[in-house]
Amino acid sequence: MKILVTGAAGFIGSNLVDALLLENHTVVGIDNLSTGRPEFLNLASKHPNFDFKQLDILNRAALSEVLDSSFDCVCHLAANADVRRGIEAPFRDLEQNTIATWNVLEAMRDSGVKHIVFTSTGSVYGEAEVIPTPENAPFPVQTSLYGASKLACEALISAYCEGYNMRGTVYRFVSFVGDRYTHGHIYDFVRQLLRSPDELRILGDGSQRKSYIHVSDGVAAIAAVLRHPSPKKYEVFNLGTSEYVTVNDSIAEICAEMGVCPERLYSGGSRGWVGDNPFIYLDCSRIRQHLDHIWAPKIGILDGVRMTVRYLLTNKHLFDAAGSVQ
Amino acid sequence: MKILVTGAAGFIGSNLVDALLLENHTVVGIDNLSTGRPEFLNLASKHPNFDFKQLDILNRAALSEVLDSSFDCVCHLAANADVRRGIEAPFRDLEQNTIATWNVLEAMRDSGVKHIVFTSTGSVYGEAEVIPTPENAPFPVQTSLYGASKLACEALISAYCEGYNMRGTVYRFVSFVGDRYTHGHIYDFVRQLLRSPDELRILGDGSQRKSYIHVSDGVAAIAAVLRHPSPKKYEVFNLGTSEYVTVNDSIAEICAEMGVCPERLYSGGSRGWVGDNPFIYLDCSRIRQHLDHIWAPKIGILDGVRMTVRYLLTNKHLFDAAGSVQ
Repeated sequence: MKILVTGAAGFIGSNLVDALLLENHTVVGIDNLSTGRPEFLNLASKHPNFDFKQLDILNRAALSEVLDSSFDCVCHLAANADVRRGIEAPFRDLEQNTIATWNVLEAMRDSGVKHIVFTSTGSVYGEAEVIPTPENAPFPVQTSLYGASKLACEALISAYCEGYNMRGTVYRFVSFVGDRYTHGHIYDFVRQLLRSPDELRILGDGSQRKSYIHVSDGVAAIAAVLRHPSPKKYEVFNLGTSEYVTVNDSIAEICAEMGVCPERLYSGGSRGWVGDNPFIYLDCSRIRQHLDHIWAPKIGILDGVRMTVRYLLTNKHLFDAAGSVQ
Repeated sequence: MKILVTGAAGFIGSNLVDALLLENHTVVGIDNLSTGRPEFLNLASKHPNFDFKQLDILNRAALSEVLDSSFDCVCHLAANADVRRGIEAPFRDLEQNTIATWNVLEAMRDSGVKHIVFTSTGSVYGEAEVIPTPENAPFPVQTSLYGASKLACEALISAYCEGYNMRGTVYRFVSFVGDRYTHGHIYDFVRQLLRSPDELRILGDGSQRKSYIHVSDGVAAIAAVLRHPSPKKYEVFNLGTSEYVTVNDSIAEICAEMGVCPERLYSGGSRGWVGDNPFIYLDCSRIRQHLDHIWAPKIGILDGVRMTVRYLLTNKHLFDAAGSVQ
């Protein structure tokens, strides 16, 4: 297949590009490089079936120049992924997620590309009433602008599938960890501990439960579904593992890997930031059944945390740039 | 209370303005008059507690000039309501519904106005699996750009309520009928029959089931909830009646009222247009319980259809303007 990947220089995007190239797809990656990193595509760039264009998907003319009818699929990963800063800059979620996704859909409609793969988030379940949360959970109430903007994307995609006879495959993710991880609590904690190994500031009380999936498992699932598509025109898959840990469990793993034993300074009560959800834990039986005997997550959560810490410690230049909070 | 009503010159907006003035609220109505009609505000304009400003809510500066901290509430009704033309002009739904609602929320945040009342739609349930459909139905799949854009609005509103400590009251409507109705199947059928009483073209096979509520009942519910608010920061109410009819039932009523007996020409299969839903029928027990002994719909569906036909026949100038399809 010939596949366009948006957000190709990002954490998940670049891993997906590598996975797709390994399966002999032809891949064009695009990224505005606002948070993506060109070096994440170093491996891909050596591959004859890969091409990269720097462009912003908010620029529809530029997007339409790249996307022509020779593509079989668009994997749309470009997004504002900073869940926590939503309330400081609400337009960012609306523009970079919702309006950008609309742009991608319009460019696909113009060029006749029929299949979109979209990376949504478990945040769309808000404060889920059912845990683990299945795809057909009760109609959710959004608690973050990030979740709201991603839900709006999902809604647009499903309406386009219905209205323009397109196909949509939507993944609602738990958080990803692994190589090229540059954003989130492990990054924040490792950065803090590199600066001051005796003290760790933690938003929330550490009891927040979180479920993570290793990026290699996540992109393998997406690649497998491309080989074994759903018979449905519009399909939603939760994507995560059947495990969860607390932030404190994760901290213990990080500290052990770094060989430090900091004083833990908690703040902010039982949840870290407005709109944070104390527990995103997804029922992933739908994708497990769909990919029965083909795919299952291979890396456990704490192994994933440890591998991520090692990755960060061997790529300390990632801490030189601004971009993460906490 | 001092209330801003957007879309004030529209069908539902102008009826809501009249109902709020009757309850001694101070009302400022705004409308860009793209589809709203100034004459719908003739009654309101005689009231000392009413003021009207023509402005487009996509113009945030103009909106922010009107909306100051003296307002208690914004009833946000302005929208692109043409469900059927979504696939012809998808940006209209995104811009006039989603981006416009974001503008209203930002203007409220700037001015410190804390309560938004929003008119959503039963279309957000897509092809509902549970009928009658309750507010906490399974996570829906959008089948129209209109529904998608309204779901995006709901998501934004709930995220703003969580992030900025605002209050939101969202109504998911069935279709409204009654005085000032200018848009929808009764309008289309009456217009056709005035031109050619012997023939009626019908999208779909006429068996589509529909539930309507009379606009006087609908706006009375909204006004009653303003007097008796939900204790929840963010509340969603379905708003409809416990009845439904088929399009054919409705046609029979229209024809009887007009004294015509046309040949019926059906086209388009079992549903009228791409994205049409064969049956939007809402479980309205939540609002009935909330307003127990205070409010219940008074006008049955076919009575509502007949009253709407009479209204249109005594206001034939409404057919002079373009704007409706079918």
